[in-house]
Amino acid sequence: MTGPRYTDLVAGLPATVPFVGPETQERERGKPFIARLGANESVFGPSPKAIEAMGEAAREVWKYGDAQSYDLRQALATYHGVAMENIIVGEGIDGLLGYLVRLVVAPGDAVVTSDGAYPTFNYHVTGYGGLLHKVPYRNDHEDPEALLEKAAEVGAKLIYIANPDNPMGSWHSAETITRMIDRVPEGSLLILDEAYIDLAPEGTAAVIASDDPRVIRMRTFSKGYGMAGARVGYAIAAPGLVAAFDKVRNHFGMCRISQAGALAALHDQHWLTEVRIRVARARDELAAVARDNGLHPLPSATNFVTIDCGQTGDFARKVLNELVTRGIFVRMPFVAPQDRCIRVSVGRAHDLSEFARVLPQALAAARSLA
Amino acid sequence: MTGPRYTDLVAGLPATVPFVGPETQERERGKPFIARLGANESVFGPSPKAIEAMGEAAREVWKYGDAQSYDLRQALATYHGVAMENIIVGEGIDGLLGYLVRLVVAPGDAVVTSDGAYPTFNYHVTGYGGLLHKVPYRNDHEDPEALLEKAAEVGAKLIYIANPDNPMGSWHSAETITRMIDRVPEGSLLILDEAYIDLAPEGTAAVIASDDPRVIRMRTFSKGYGMAGARVGYAIAAPGLVAAFDKVRNHFGMCRISQAGALAALHDQHWLTEVRIRVARARDELAAVARDNGLHPLPSATNFVTIDCGQTGDFARKVLNELVTRGIFVRMPFVAPQDRCIRVSVGRAHDLSEFARVLPQALAAARSLA
Repeated sequence: MTGPRYTDLVAGLPATVPFVGPETQERERGKPFIARLGANESVFGPSPKAIEAMGEAAREVWKYGDAQSYDLRQALATYHGVAMENIIVGEGIDGLLGYLVRLVVAPGDAVVTSDGAYPTFNYHVTGYGGLLHKVPYRNDHEDPEALLEKAAEVGAKLIYIANPDNPMGSWHSAETITRMIDRVPEGSLLILDEAYIDLAPEGTAAVIASDDPRVIRMRTFSKGYGMAGARVGYAIAAPGLVAAFDKVRNHFGMCRISQAGALAALHDQHWLTEVRIRVARARDELAAVARDNGLHPLPSATNFVTIDCGQTGDFARKVLNELVTRGIFVRMPFVAPQDRCIRVSVGRAHDLSEFARVLPQALAAARSLA
Repeated sequence: MTGPRYTDLVAGLPATVPFVGPETQERERGKPFIARLGANESVFGPSPKAIEAMGEAAREVWKYGDAQSYDLRQALATYHGVAMENIIVGEGIDGLLGYLVRLVVAPGDAVVTSDGAYPTFNYHVTGYGGLLHKVPYRNDHEDPEALLEKAAEVGAKLIYIANPDNPMGSWHSAETITRMIDRVPEGSLLILDEAYIDLAPEGTAAVIASDDPRVIRMRTFSKGYGMAGARVGYAIAAPGLVAAFDKVRNHFGMCRISQAGALAALHDQHWLTEVRIRVARARDELAAVARDNGLHPLPSATNFVTIDCGQTGDFARKVLNELVTRGIFVRMPFVAPQDRCIRVSVGRAHDLSEFARVLPQALAAARSLA
């Protein structure tokens, strides 16, 4: 008796996973974290109206979700001033990236991204046999110029950029992104991952014509809207590309409770405004803690602050390890020279005070190991 | 400016979707259905404890779900008397079927199923370029013998069978399935879709060794547990196959609320027992309505009754159309000779009384059109 015959592509894939989740780490530690600041989740939670809508929807969860996510797409279309045909809803940006890569990338096809950018995108590209070409960050920013040049050079089918960026928290102006779109090589599609855009300064979001075939922008309810666990992402793109998702997506894949929650969250823009204020304040506090400890916080347009530990990647990894050991869940960039930093999501008052309490201990321990 | 360059495989895929959802039909009708009996959802809903757990989890939905679905997998392992390493949780059986096909099916690979069996499985196979080989039903049952013969003939990588079956409601004994597994050709994997097993007579579920590499069984919280909209399915298989899913799945794709709901639902077996009783009673009532109208209800081990309308597929399609026009959402098999039937999910008292009220009108209208 033998097992299934996997495809050659699958047989050659590594068994690694993009991220180790905090619950997995907690099980390995044998105790829970005291502050959960590593996954850029929104500690401020979803709108109370979204929570209420999800509780209501739980009673009706015997029904499959609407395969078209019609009400949500209609509301999103109104919100963005586009047509419903410009909007595809999916199981988080992660899910949508998977579908998009499947639509476009055949084994051997070239894809361009930044070295150290979103690992889950790379996971999908590798998973469909694509060849990743990576360009370095420039001054802790993704480098539109280098991405475009590399894409032209290798004939990339996809180019990935996040604005604002994760893991560095840096961002480009709307004008820079617009200029980038204007220079996307013929035959390439730009993926503009705007997961953190709700937390960025006004004017960071580029204005893009709804029928522009050169770009697909991705948004999420996981960050500003505080619904990471609900798995609701969406993309805005030309109607032809949106329609193509119907060829491959899991049509009844959306959780009905999540659909209801996202719709209620979208309608409560007051809550999003409140979250923006709280995030900005917490960013400042986090930066102050970093400076109090002689570290350098990087400017951020997101719900996290990337903190330059001022030494090598090895040192930052020690700091991270000492933080995690002491119950503070954080993550860090994994490519030099960005790996001189740790990445800390913003927290509530007690999260921040725990971080402020533990950071000096972690730094002292890391220095004693150096 | 051109759009993205799709893969050759995707460019050749049809734009059709496996199912048109009831909400889509309601929007086309311009009014809601009065009875929702077409998608084999559980009108009796989820356990009240699951509803409560989902309401609680909604408050914590700012956190991503556990990427390993650890607690749920542990509980499922205990429930089934297997190890956690035998269980993979995914976004419904639909999601798991998609991952499995991706793992195994490369363009041109052979897959065997029954002509008229689950369309979403076929959608995934076609979507990855597989070649579907279909064998006919035998006496309204899927035909293990014919499936095995065809699989051996074409060198199938996957064989699909549902027990109990959808759309016919028929089932095979555990012994028949066990014998089928023993004869799976070398190099083939049997997919045993047990979505409806919770509603089948005791002894329908085959006993399968947890390290048997020839079969993967799929289960769901969508049917008996009444949580279709939550999108929680799972598969039980040998550890090597379970581990392979980690190479391609959306690791953070599970809704945190759904994970919590499924765990609570699993722990409330009393509710499942109650649902089994209500389903059995409603099946009898539905069958009686059919007989009262001179139609022949087929035996069912599921939460639906497939009703033989006694004439051609064209006639049954007319009956279905007249039911839908009058606000009763039902579906039907789409391959002859099974398409002489309509498929009606069990309902609550008011659903059944609406069906009983409308069915004679629909039959009369269909006959007048004949």
